[in-house]
Formats: sequence, structure tokens, C-alpha cells
Amino acid sequence: MATNQTPYSALTQRLSELTTLDEIEGLLHWDQEVTMPPGAAEARGRQVSVLGVLRHERATSDTLGSLIRQLEGDRTLVPEQQANVREARRAFDRAQGIPPDLVRQWGEATVMAHGAWVKARTASDFQLFAPHLERLVALARARAAAIDPNRPAYDVLIDAYEPGMTMERLDGIFSELRDFLVPFLAKIRAKPQPDTTCLHGEVSQPDQERVAREMAEALGFDFAHGRMDTAVHPFCGGAGATDVRITTRYRTDRFQQSLLAVVHETGHAMYEQGRDRNLADQPVSMARSMGVHESQSLLWETQVARSEAFWRGRLPWLQKQYPFLQAVSLPQFMSALNAVDFTNAIRVNADEVNYPLHVILRYELERDLLNGDLAVADLPEAWNQRSEAWLAIVPASDAEGVLQDIHWSMGAFGYFPSYTLGALYAAQLFGAAQQAHPDLNDQLTAGDFSSLRSWLRQHVHQPGSRWETDELLRRATGSALDCSWFIRHIEQRYRPMYGMV
Amino acid sequence: MATNQTPYSALTQRLSELTTLDEIEGLLHWDQEVTMPPGAAEARGRQVSVLGVLRHERATSDTLGSLIRQLEGDRTLVPEQQANVREARRAFDRAQGIPPDLVRQWGEATVMAHGAWVKARTASDFQLFAPHLERLVALARARAAAIDPNRPAYDVLIDAYEPGMTMERLDGIFSELRDFLVPFLAKIRAKPQPDTTCLHGEVSQPDQERVAREMAEALGFDFAHGRMDTAVHPFCGGAGATDVRITTRYRTDRFQQSLLAVVHETGHAMYEQGRDRNLADQPVSMARSMGVHESQSLLWETQVARSEAFWRGRLPWLQKQYPFLQAVSLPQFMSALNAVDFTNAIRVNADEVNYPLHVILRYELERDLLNGDLAVADLPEAWNQRSEAWLAIVPASDAEGVLQDIHWSMGAFGYFPSYTLGALYAAQLFGAAQQAHPDLNDQLTAGDFSSLRSWLRQHVHQPGSRWETDELLRRATGSALDCSWFIRHIEQRYRPMYGMV
Repeated sequence: MATNQTPYSALTQRLSELTTLDEIEGLLHWDQEVTMPPGAAEARGRQVSVLGVLRHERATSDTLGSLIRQLEGDRTLVPEQQANVREARRAFDRAQGIPPDLVRQWGEATVMAHGAWVKARTASDFQLFAPHLERLVALARARAAAIDPNRPAYDVLIDAYEPGMTMERLDGIFSELRDFLVPFLAKIRAKPQPDTTCLHGEVSQPDQERVAREMAEALGFDFAHGRMDTAVHPFCGGAGATDVRITTRYRTDRFQQSLLAVVHETGHAMYEQGRDRNLADQPVSMARSMGVHESQSLLWETQVARSEAFWRGRLPWLQKQYPFLQAVSLPQFMSALNAVDFTNAIRVNADEVNYPLHVILRYELERDLLNGDLAVADLPEAWNQRSEAWLAIVPASDAEGVLQDIHWSMGAFGYFPSYTLGALYAAQLFGAAQQAHPDLNDQLTAGDFSSLRSWLRQHVHQPGSRWETDELLRRATGSALDCSWFIRHIEQRYRPMYGMV
Repeated sequence: MATNQTPYSALTQRLSELTTLDEIEGLLHWDQEVTMPPGAAEARGRQVSVLGVLRHERATSDTLGSLIRQLEGDRTLVPEQQANVREARRAFDRAQGIPPDLVRQWGEATVMAHGAWVKARTASDFQLFAPHLERLVALARARAAAIDPNRPAYDVLIDAYEPGMTMERLDGIFSELRDFLVPFLAKIRAKPQPDTTCLHGEVSQPDQERVAREMAEALGFDFAHGRMDTAVHPFCGGAGATDVRITTRYRTDRFQQSLLAVVHETGHAMYEQGRDRNLADQPVSMARSMGVHESQSLLWETQVARSEAFWRGRLPWLQKQYPFLQAVSLPQFMSALNAVDFTNAIRVNADEVNYPLHVILRYELERDLLNGDLAVADLPEAWNQRSEAWLAIVPASDAEGVLQDIHWSMGAFGYFPSYTLGALYAAQLFGAAQQAHPDLNDQLTAGDFSSLRSWLRQHVHQPGSRWETDELLRRATGSALDCSWFIRHIEQRYRPMYGMV
């Protein structure tokens, strides 16, 4: 610690260093997915590993721990500084609590499990993956106990993605949601299904890239502080708030998939680009949670770019870009774009109405695995039962069922709920923005996204991690998480579309 | 240090970590030049700085120092391991010798000096740069004294780029070279000058990129372990031996500049890609010196890609790519490609014959500055005098004279000689390869570069830093550095071309 430095500035310097290492790690990851030559994979693994070890040393240092302890009692700190200390404490406890030997075992087990999962999925044989998953569940329990032995393991794991969220609360939210969605889907299924083939024209990748870039820029993606590239998986990454990089992939016969994926990643990107620049290297400025991050991508994707208000203004523009759309009417376009798909068993391809059921299914299974209420051996059966009951689909194989997602092979237990929490937050935030700007739909039609952007910046991006998620929502929308906003949104969009008014 | 680890394996682990951090720094730099969005510059500065501080801590740690000390006396090590320890010692002494306060002052002074140099060059006003250069010279002397107070400062500085090289030796080599080149150029100047306009056709950047990529691949660039991109400055960088990235820039009316630049960077790249993969994270595998690195780029650029043997085979191919060349004969093409340019005052644009004089000029000036034999205030005058005497050009302005190069603004005193040492090594190595393969020219004509590549890999790339430079040259060519090879090469190429046979 330099002389004349206050404890708080000593803390911010150390936290800034950790953020900087995370930014570098972000660049290594982006490069690996986008630009790295194939033969560099082994070296990249070494680079990520060395950086991770250095980061871990610094994230768990005694000096950092005692600075945090010292500042936790310091009532001279302003609220923003107190929040920064609180977030530093949360990260420190999670990093420092896990003994090095467990860190090592976890690292080895996830590498093995991921390899086994790839093989198992290719062979569509869950048994190849099962022993690895058993080991990961056991190690995840040990990790959770090391961080906090007084709380249920799964609650401790959720905390990594959605701080403060608990099984008890998720059980309630997800029951309410499932109890609405399952019968609602049954009603939709009984109606005539829209024709989606009007969207199936062929569009070259360069044409799609041009349109995607223009769309991202129109929504507010800042290309001076970001990039857009092609990669196998769409993601939002990069090297900090001034260097936000999104990717997408292109299917030449399904332009709408890439276009909506770009809008989705643009939502993530604008959250990062909109963070408080003066504090961008401090935890207090960071995204509140995975769920809140997903709320920003889903708000732009589903609330905006799947809305009729948006396409009333944009469709003529898109028809100029893609002439085969010229004969498509706005109602036809909207029905095709938002059609509910009853033939799909895969989460990442799911529509907005089915998606939460995919998530709730995974949530219940991983919750039960971690609680010891479900044996790994019984997982495929439990998966297929729920899939049949809720989605009315029995997966054709393990590959299309229990093995479809990468998450468990990485040990990311507790991650799945974020997707649906994000959808709920998105509906609630967009509803509040509409209340604040009663003409918001007209603005979307006019292609003017500035009010919405400003509202999000003020209520979500700039606050970052200043408040816990419920407090953030209360300040932005007047109440804590409330899934009636999402249910109302689904009803308002899909009842008229399926003649259920 | 983990238990059961030998001191030597503890050392290699630490050295590997330093190499890995260098690779990451290499990626940060490549990305900054090629892909980084413009608004991320400040964050990138922070990332490079944090990484640099971490690296410095580890490169100067007491544990590393005592491991090296312990192993220097260990006669059970095989020669390759001994060389690794020797190279570790060299780097450790250079890093560890400089006190932190001087590191900080140097960092600040170079940042200031670089900013002042940019302004001074724009205004073509040396006075704006002079006080910064004075400070850098003083600090460079202090750095050299901190590393080794018993040797002349400039010798210590050269060591960073060309280990073992000294002023005494450079004075001799460069005198011999200058005494040949100045009268030789005068003779060329008296002859009719070739017409270069036959190369001035317009070629689009995509066409040039396609040709450049094909050329790099033909020479042996390994795209599975490397990339080629566009940047403002051509360079070879990346993230280690399996991730070597070259860049170039394109002028649509001077295709030959980009093409030769790509060949040049390909030469650098093949050195890196050809290093001993089993030891790629250890100092012993690294490029022997800046001069040897430059020998690999110049060997491919000047010895191969400016040779008639090469173009005898390649010109018909190029004429197919660039139809405007179809009327150009091989002799015309060769004369235009290698024409000596008597109107150019800028080093980076200099031809092969003038280039060493640009370097010798800078060498003498920086040597005299560091030795205290030349005041910064007298530098422009000294520059212009030598330029007139050797190059027969008085720069039109400071911007085109003493301010043209970035090196001094970065404090890179001792770097310039590497360029010409590289040209000398290149001629000597290529000459030896020709002796080993008497039909090498026929192979070049046939587009078969495999013998040359293998020879270089065996004699230069794989040895890396196993031997000091003179030993490397002795093993490869039968003698230490000998500039008669280069002189012979220049005479053989330019005498016939200018009718001086």
C-alpha cells in the first residue's frame, strides 16, 4: 500500500486490479471464439490458467481481506462506497472460502466432465456422462459448504449468478409461472397455427451482417466502444465497459434468428456500455446479476424487437433490404416471428412462451440433485417425465433431452433460473418504462429508442450493483420481483395472435 | 514451490509463467493494433500496465533469483538446460537491477517523450522534442549503470536487443560496410536509372490480400498457428509460437510494397512458428536476438523475394493475378523491383543498398549521445551532415530527418543496429544454405522452399537461444559474423543490374 493512501483508496486500487485481470480474461475468451488460430488452443489454455492463478492469489489475499473488514465498519463512507465494500465482501468470501485443493479438484473434474459430456452427447448416451455429473454434484456441495455451511448448498450456488435468490422464493415464482403457462400453451395448441414459411427466404451472410449492424446501431450499440463479429455461439463479451464485443452466427435460410440474436446481444452490450464509467473498474458499477443482465437482452429482444409497435415502423425498411418480404403483411410477419413452436425440444430454440418451462424443468432437477432428492441415475427419466407433462414432448434421445445443455458439464448449477428471472425482470422493467413514457410504443414505431435507453440507463445500467436486486426493481418499477407483469405480457401478445380474445 | 519439485523444474515453471504473461501482453498489443475499438484505448493502457506490474514482480522475485543462482553452479544440467539458466540470468539481471523508482521515472518519461515526439514531428520542430530526449538519454544512462556499472552505457543498452554486441565491434563492422556502400552508391548513381513505372498498376486491397495470403502460405506460413490481418503498421506479433500473427497495410498503387512486407513478416513468423515446441515457454527456445530475428525476415524478403531465381518462377503467376503486368519482362520487373532510390530520405522506405547507411547514421548518433560526445542540441545538424555525406540527401525538414523514427521517443537506444545486423546475418545464412544446397536457386524458381525452410529450422529456428549469436553463426555458416557475405550479395545483385560488370 502506497503511503498517504486511505484504506478505501487502497481497496479500490486492489479491486481495480482484479477488474483489469477480468477484462484481460474477457479478451482472451473473445479472441479464442472469434480470431484465435485453431492450433493455439493449448497455449490459450495455459494463458487462461496462469491468469486465473494470479487473479485468485490477489482475490484472496490477506491484505484485501483485512481492508474489507476494516471498511465494513466505516460509517464515513457514502452509500455508493458502502455498496462497493459489500460487493467486494461477497466476491472475497466466495473466492477465499474454497480451499486450494478443492479449487484444483473442481478444475480437473469440470475439464473431465466437459469432455465426457461432448462424447456422451455425440453418442446420445447419458451413462458416459453420469459418473462425471455425480462427481460434480458432490464437489459442488463441498464448494457450497466451504463458502457457507449454514445455508442449503443450492442456495449458495445460486448466489454466484443471482445474489440473494433462494430455492424457497424460486419455488413460489416458478410454480405460479408454470401454473399459468401449461394450460395457456394447451389453449394455443388447440388453435390454428400461423404460417411461418413467409420468413424462409434466402439471405446471404454479408447482407445479414449489414442489416444486423444497422439494427444494432439504431438501437444504441456504441461501435466506438464495441465490436460485432461472427462466432459459433452468440455471446456478449470483451474487455470492459469501453470494449464490449458481441457475436452472432448466421443461417442464410432463417434471417430472423440471427437478427433477434443480434438484438439480444445488443441488449447485453448496452448494459455494459451504459455502466458508470467513473466507477467502471469497481464492483459497485458491475451488472447486478445474471438475471438482470438477461433482462436487458430480453427486454430488447422480446419486449421491443418482437413487438408490433416496433415492426410497424421497421418492416418497410426490412422489406427494402430483403425483397422477398415485400408481399408479407405486418400481421403475417408478426405471427410468423412469434409463432409458438410445439415441435421443439431444445431450450435454445424455444419460443418465448415455452422457454420458462425448459428452465423450470432444469431448475427442479438441479435443485433436487443438490438437495439429494434425485439420483443422477434417475435424471433422464425425471427429465423426460417433466418434458412430457409440461412441454408435451418426449425427447427423441438423451442428446435432445438431458444432454442438450452445456451448463451441468461445467458445473454451473444455479445458472438456469437466471434466464427466466431475466424474462420476468424484462417484462416488469419494460412495463414501468411504458408507464413513465405513455407514448413509448409510438416512439418504437418511429425508430426512436432514446427515451427507453435513457430510462434503462438511469434505472438499471448506471445503478449497477448499488442496490440488491429487489431494491433495484422497487426503485425502477415500484415493487420487488412480481411475475404478473410477464404473465400479462404473454397474454397481451399471444391471446390476440391466436384468436383467444 | 511444490514438494518433490527439483530446483530446475521449479525454475522452468516460473519461466513458463513469465512467458505466458508475455504471450498475453502480445495478444493485448495485437488486438490494440488490429481489432480493438477506438474508445478502449484508455482501458487497454490500464490492462497493459497492470499486467506489466504483475510480470515485473514475478520477474524480479527473490525466489527466482535464488533458483537461478543455485542452478548456475549445477554441472548435472545438460547443455540445453545450462543455456536456459544463462538466458534466465540475463533477463533477471536486466529486470532486477533497475530500482523501482527508476522504472517509474522511465515509464513516465517515455510516455511524455512519445507525446512530445508526435507533436514535434507534426510541427517539424525538433526543439519540442529536445528536452524530452535529453531526459531520456540521462535516464537511459542511469538504467545502464544500474544494470552494469562496469561497462559503457551504450553497450549495456545494445545488450537488450543484441546480446553480446559492443560498440567496439559495431564500429568496425559498420566502417567496413560504409566504406563499401558510399562509393558503390556513387557508381550506381552515375548509371542510367531503371524505369519503375511498370509496377504502378492499380490493385484493389482484396486482390492484394488474396495474393499475399497465397504467397505467405507458399513460403511456409502456418495458418493453423497464425493469422494475417491489416493494420496501420506491418508487424509480427501474437501470443506465442503456436499463435503468430502478422499484419500489413495496402497501397493500391504500389502492390510490391505490401507484397514484400508480407514476405518480410512471414520470415519473422516462420522463426517464431519454427521454434522448439517442446521448450516454447522457456527462454532457451526464444529468438536469439533482434538482429537474428531481422535476419529471418530479410532473408525471405531480400535474399529470396527480391531474387531473379524466385521471380523466374513466380512472375507468370503474378501476371495472371495482376494482368497489367503481362507486358513486363523478367529483367524489367527485377530492375523495377530492386531499383535504388536516390530521392528518399526516410529509412523505412529505403532500398536494400541505402538502408544500412540510414542505420549507421543513427547508430553513430545514439552512440555519441550516450557516450556524452554529442549534445542533443547538436543532433539535427549532425544528422543532416551525415545524411548529406553518405546518402547525398539533406532532409527537407526535421520531420523528414531527425524526427522521422519513433525509436528514440520510446527510449529504444541500441535498437537500430539490429536492422543492419539482420541484413548481414541474412546474407551469411543464405550463402551457407546455398552452399549446403547447390541447387537452391532452381528450387526457388520451382517454388519449392522446403529445403531452405528445413535448413533455417535446423540452424536457426530450433536452436533458438541455445548458443550466443557468433556460435550460432559458426555452427550454421562456419564463421562468426562476417560482412563480406552481404557485400558480395550487393555486388552480385546490383553490378549486373546497373551495367557495372
